Amino acid sequence: MTKQLTVVKVGGKIVEQPEQLDCLLRGFAALDGLKILVHGGGRTATDVATRLGLTTEMINGRRVTSADMLRVVTMVYGGLVNKNVVALLQATGINALGLTGADMDVIRSHRRPPLPDGTDYGFVGDVDRVDGDRLAALLESGVTPVMAPLTHDGQGSLLNTNADTIAASVAKALASHYDVTLTYCFEHAGVLSDPADEESVIPLITPSTYRQLKEREIVTGGMLPKIDNALAAISAGVRRVVITRADALSENCGTSIEPDAE
Amino acid sequence: MTKQLTVVKVGGKIVEQPEQLDCLLRGFAALDGLKILVHGGGRTATDVATRLGLTTEMINGRRVTSADMLRVVTMVYGGLVNKNVVALLQATGINALGLTGADMDVIRSHRRPPLPDGTDYGFVGDVDRVDGDRLAALLESGVTPVMAPLTHDGQGSLLNTNADTIAASVAKALASHYDVTLTYCFEHAGVLSDPADEESVIPLITPSTYRQLKEREIVTGGMLPKIDNALAAISAGVRRVVITRADALSENCGTSIEPDAE
Repeated sequence: MTKQLTVVKVGGKIVEQPEQLDCLLRGFAALDGLKILVHGGGRTATDVATRLGLTTEMINGRRVTSADMLRVVTMVYGGLVNKNVVALLQATGINALGLTGADMDVIRSHRRPPLPDGTDYGFVGDVDRVDGDRLAALLESGVTPVMAPLTHDGQGSLLNTNADTIAASVAKALASHYDVTLTYCFEHAGVLSDPADEESVIPLITPSTYRQLKEREIVTGGMLPKIDNALAAISAGVRRVVITRADALSENCGTSIEPDAE
Repeated sequence: MTKQLTVVKVGGKIVEQPEQLDCLLRGFAALDGLKILVHGGGRTATDVATRLGLTTEMINGRRVTSADMLRVVTMVYGGLVNKNVVALLQATGINALGLTGADMDVIRSHRRPPLPDGTDYGFVGDVDRVDGDRLAALLESGVTPVMAPLTHDGQGSLLNTNADTIAASVAKALASHYDVTLTYCFEHAGVLSDPADEESVIPLITPSTYRQLKEREIVTGGMLPKIDNALAAISAGVRRVVITRADALSENCGTSIEPDAE
């Protein structure tokens, strides 16, 4: 039987608040099977950048990463957030190892070229490949990777890389090794049929039910790209994608996005 | 035959200047056999702390590490310096992995208690144990550890730890696995018999020649604790300790501190 692996992505909002982080890490520790944690840290990066006199520029919700901003995110994502999470997980008995994509060359990327309209995100990386064999070898030796949203280009430069993308890329790269669940922790209880009602979680979305949800305009706006990405991960072999609240990580709730039943 | 391992310690002065770092990393890459790099980063930490409005307090040359300063050194040592060195080594073909003591629990420490006179260094760790088996397994799998001067207490707290001490502790822990050379990169060409003359390097120091050098007051001052620590490492099984310039790392020069010939 194929072993279970859960790849959990948590955003900056959670890892940066001690109480929420504590709750998350207890839920993460309680998960059965092999696991990988992927974290953000954007709020702290913005805060540190401001205190260092740098202005944070966002385009379409993505951080523009100048050379100075790359230094800040390397400090915050690779150092402050990553190493604190590792130390806290060690205290719960989980043998955590903090990684960027440069460490053991686990995630190689290339710098995103400027867009045709001249928009340049700077030192931002788009993932080329994840070394699934190396990550699997770590998991098999009892290690739990904790991944910061940084990759490298193999030419000596680190690159700022979206944490959701890293989580999806890692989940896909390990889909041939394990039965993979990719869990996105989120501020809501799941995908809601009524945005005003946290009780209205849609428990299961499949490609065919998703078409209906879109047609009936039950799922709209910012949820659409999230579910599109989830379905792309499913197509690439990930068993299921779960969208849930960070404090409900080890409970079996939230929205599960799965292939259609055969 | 026992394999060769070189543990190289470089201070902040070198890793923080691109040209010197480049030279160091080329020398490190050229070293034969297995290797581990241990780095400092104190100057950048002081600089970032100042820009964040924190005052750096030193007692006997050691940084007092408040909670805020611990955040700064976690950012700078664990993130900025460590991950840039890892990315640069990857570009030379070395499969580097950045580590703090918390990662895979490789170095456990305890917070240094206040001294009898009330001096409190804050979040500073004294090393309790190094997991030599884990580091050896990494080395055998083709990985080159790059170690930041941070450890953890196993209770969830990172601790600021002297890089020279980390290098010596790692070298000692691996002395039963390998034929270990511990190399301290230094601003001078080695231990000098005439401090004004860089050509006056003493090529070999053993316990018996060291006694003579002390008696004749050829070696004095700040060199004494360095050589005492080197001899302690030798007593613990390290084959030799080399003190040399960072830009001469792969050349066979500097001062070699070794046991007396039998």
